[in-house]
Amino acid sequence: MKALKMGFEPRAVAVLGASRDPAKFGHWTVDILLRAGFPGKVYPVNPGTEEILGLKCWPDVREIPGPVDLACICQPAPKVRPLLEACVEKKVPLVVIFSSGFAETGPEGKKAEAELVRTIRGSSTRIVGPNSLGIINTANRLIASFGREIVQRDHPPGEVAFLSQSGAFGQALYCWAQDMNLGLSKFISTGNEADLGCPEYLEYLARDAGTRVIMMYLEGLQHGRRFIEVARRAVAQKPVLVLKVGRSRAGRRAAASHTGALAGEDEVYAAAFRQAGVIRVGDPEDMFDAARALVRQPPLAGNRIAIVTSSGGIGVQTADACEDMGLEVPVLGEGTFGEVGGELPHFAAVANPIDLTSQVHLNPHWFAGVVRALVRCPEVDGVIVGVSAFRQVEIARQIAAGAEGSAKPVLVSWTIGSAARDAVAELEAQGIPVYPTPDRAARAMGRLWEYTRFRRRQRERLAADQGQERGDAS
Amino acid sequence: MKALKMGFEPRAVAVLGASRDPAKFGHWTVDILLRAGFPGKVYPVNPGTEEILGLKCWPDVREIPGPVDLACICQPAPKVRPLLEACVEKKVPLVVIFSSGFAETGPEGKKAEAELVRTIRGSSTRIVGPNSLGIINTANRLIASFGREIVQRDHPPGEVAFLSQSGAFGQALYCWAQDMNLGLSKFISTGNEADLGCPEYLEYLARDAGTRVIMMYLEGLQHGRRFIEVARRAVAQKPVLVLKVGRSRAGRRAAASHTGALAGEDEVYAAAFRQAGVIRVGDPEDMFDAARALVRQPPLAGNRIAIVTSSGGIGVQTADACEDMGLEVPVLGEGTFGEVGGELPHFAAVANPIDLTSQVHLNPHWFAGVVRALVRCPEVDGVIVGVSAFRQVEIARQIAAGAEGSAKPVLVSWTIGSAARDAVAELEAQGIPVYPTPDRAARAMGRLWEYTRFRRRQRERLAADQGQERGDAS
Repeated sequence: MKALKMGFEPRAVAVLGASRDPAKFGHWTVDILLRAGFPGKVYPVNPGTEEILGLKCWPDVREIPGPVDLACICQPAPKVRPLLEACVEKKVPLVVIFSSGFAETGPEGKKAEAELVRTIRGSSTRIVGPNSLGIINTANRLIASFGREIVQRDHPPGEVAFLSQSGAFGQALYCWAQDMNLGLSKFISTGNEADLGCPEYLEYLARDAGTRVIMMYLEGLQHGRRFIEVARRAVAQKPVLVLKVGRSRAGRRAAASHTGALAGEDEVYAAAFRQAGVIRVGDPEDMFDAARALVRQPPLAGNRIAIVTSSGGIGVQTADACEDMGLEVPVLGEGTFGEVGGELPHFAAVANPIDLTSQVHLNPHWFAGVVRALVRCPEVDGVIVGVSAFRQVEIARQIAAGAEGSAKPVLVSWTIGSAARDAVAELEAQGIPVYPTPDRAARAMGRLWEYTRFRRRQRERLAADQGQERGDAS
Repeated sequence: MKALKMGFEPRAVAVLGASRDPAKFGHWTVDILLRAGFPGKVYPVNPGTEEILGLKCWPDVREIPGPVDLACICQPAPKVRPLLEACVEKKVPLVVIFSSGFAETGPEGKKAEAELVRTIRGSSTRIVGPNSLGIINTANRLIASFGREIVQRDHPPGEVAFLSQSGAFGQALYCWAQDMNLGLSKFISTGNEADLGCPEYLEYLARDAGTRVIMMYLEGLQHGRRFIEVARRAVAQKPVLVLKVGRSRAGRRAAASHTGALAGEDEVYAAAFRQAGVIRVGDPEDMFDAARALVRQPPLAGNRIAIVTSSGGIGVQTADACEDMGLEVPVLGEGTFGEVGGELPHFAAVANPIDLTSQVHLNPHWFAGVVRALVRCPEVDGVIVGVSAFRQVEIARQIAAGAEGSAKPVLVSWTIGSAARDAVAELEAQGIPVYPTPDRAARAMGRLWEYTRFRRRQRERLAADQGQERGDAS
């Protein structure tokens, strides 16, 4: 998808409907492009103004001398079509239409939207939106959005892409993901998907080298079959997490009125996602929790989990939640802990969950020894550490030391609220995701396992197909 | 349960094993009793010391002149028995034994624990623990605990009691509940339950006028039948939330080794909880989320929920989650919004979920008007507001204004992370619980509905029984 690649890595961006009025979208959009440090050219376009934020303002996109790879349209719906025509003539590959007032408003808007599609027919121009909150590429500091909160933020880079069919909610999740220390690579607010839609975006993100995990917030798919085909190929490259709403009757009713798309029956979606290997999450916390594990930790090769905690209660909860997610918590052989084993409370050494008891607060190096032994143990595929301890940063360091260089995933739950802030920061800085409850740590581990199973099934199917082909050929 | 009432509202507390060494439990315990502002007398007891923290230190609890209603034993296991004997002679009604090294350690410890029980036999003294982290009554600032974090905190009063079968994890949840702005009335760390156990504690908390909601963290019940009988009576007074772990095989294995109690089969618990009307929650977040709704909002009389949001996507998610919880999201009659209706976007007025769109950011008073209309609407039993907005505090104020004086519960989800901090604080200050996702707001509303259904079933059963009796008598 050349148009998307050019639009996300543009040499120059034009803002159609740029404004000198600081209360207008057309102002914010120019402002954030400049402030975020986008290194390419920014061209405000507005026939009524000479200069905006120190930049020469152009009366028409066609008059801009050099190439324009991305255009943002910030004008009200009735003014959009002639601006889009100008972009087509200018051969702008990607046009993001912020304007609302199209298919989402009823039959009249649908007609106007169809006209936009006719406008680009036969051209090389493609449309994001209309009714899109914009697109972001943190790698080149391209913030092409008028989102009120987005334009006020820094945008640290990362490797998780996020696509949202809702603008306002997408913006909320984008900001929340930042709070959760989940670095984002790209953001796409799809809007009404008059032209480009989820299949195209997913294909682009699957190929994008800067993206290692894809998160999607979906309300309804117009091209379900095509999406699933693309998703199957995407999942072979990287994990795809989908938060798909509209499961309930009332939810579908609302989704149908909210987007132009008709929300299909949920069972169909559920089956299709399963088939494609897409991981369907339950809510935004589930999505972020999973993404943090997938992007920071090695894959989970099997489903045997060792649990080590500072409190028996946390161990029990973690074990419960692991089994809910299809993970096993096997009894481990004696001598698993090697040298550190001799120091541990006698009951810790033979069990799983391994309860180091509150004595570990006085002996935080036990965590390093036990975690190191567990990630090397051939009976264990992944480790969950559960802490509710108060000798905080030192315990965090010891856990991180034990996990260092591990080829198996290590996740931590630290159940204590704000008292763990420093410890959590320490672990996160070392690349170890921390969750507020044992359940959420176990669920994230379960998501790793889901992805491994999908990939394995896919490889088996591929091998079977190839065997079949060889058989056919002989 | 007179011993518990006296112990939680003591005229005087003795600390047996009080210490001048700031690294010891016996020091912290005296220290926090003084610092927290407990208004009764505090007597350090230790034959080797004259004075601790400015208080005269007594060689033996029996030598203290006045009554002692609560004693805390901070000495290692082998020294506990004679101290307990002294408490029995002194007629101390409640003794909290912090010491570990009893039934949780194996057969020897079990024997030592049985001796403790023999020591109090026939006396008026009752035991909390051993292996208890202590008890707290925020109403009289009684912090009788050596929990490392607990002794460092303030303890704002509240109306939610919390009982925990795990000391370390209980402390973690206690602190986290504080962070979540969930004021606690009483805290009980049950320890090994050698004498007093969950049935007695639950009975006491059910009668406690300062407690309106009870939360319990359970690993296994020794007296299941008695607990369920007590629970049934408790639920008639106030909601009881139970986080019961040990659902899985590995979890039960761990629970059995962790506490003295044998964890029973989970299906039996599940059925018993259902029968008693106890609300079983899935994890700590579920428990806190439910408690905040139950303690701050009026009961939910029926299951018809109106959803009003600033974003269609949030509305769909909330509707999905409501149906998952057995709540209905009915289509509302035209004209529901009265005067404010005329101002709203045309598509908002007829639907449920009601999507006020991002236009509500410029018209925050819509929230007040719509919420006020909904809580008065006879077709609606409760309201969930879903926001991802950035004109924060004003929107919060408008929602609170709409909910003011409502006889129906109003819950809010504000999905945006830290950017909503001020707005959340404003709503919480007005008594309206705020959740980070639509799902969690809907789940909390579902917990209100669970409690209503239990109470209704209970009343119907009672009425049927009375009808039966009248029938028998006639």
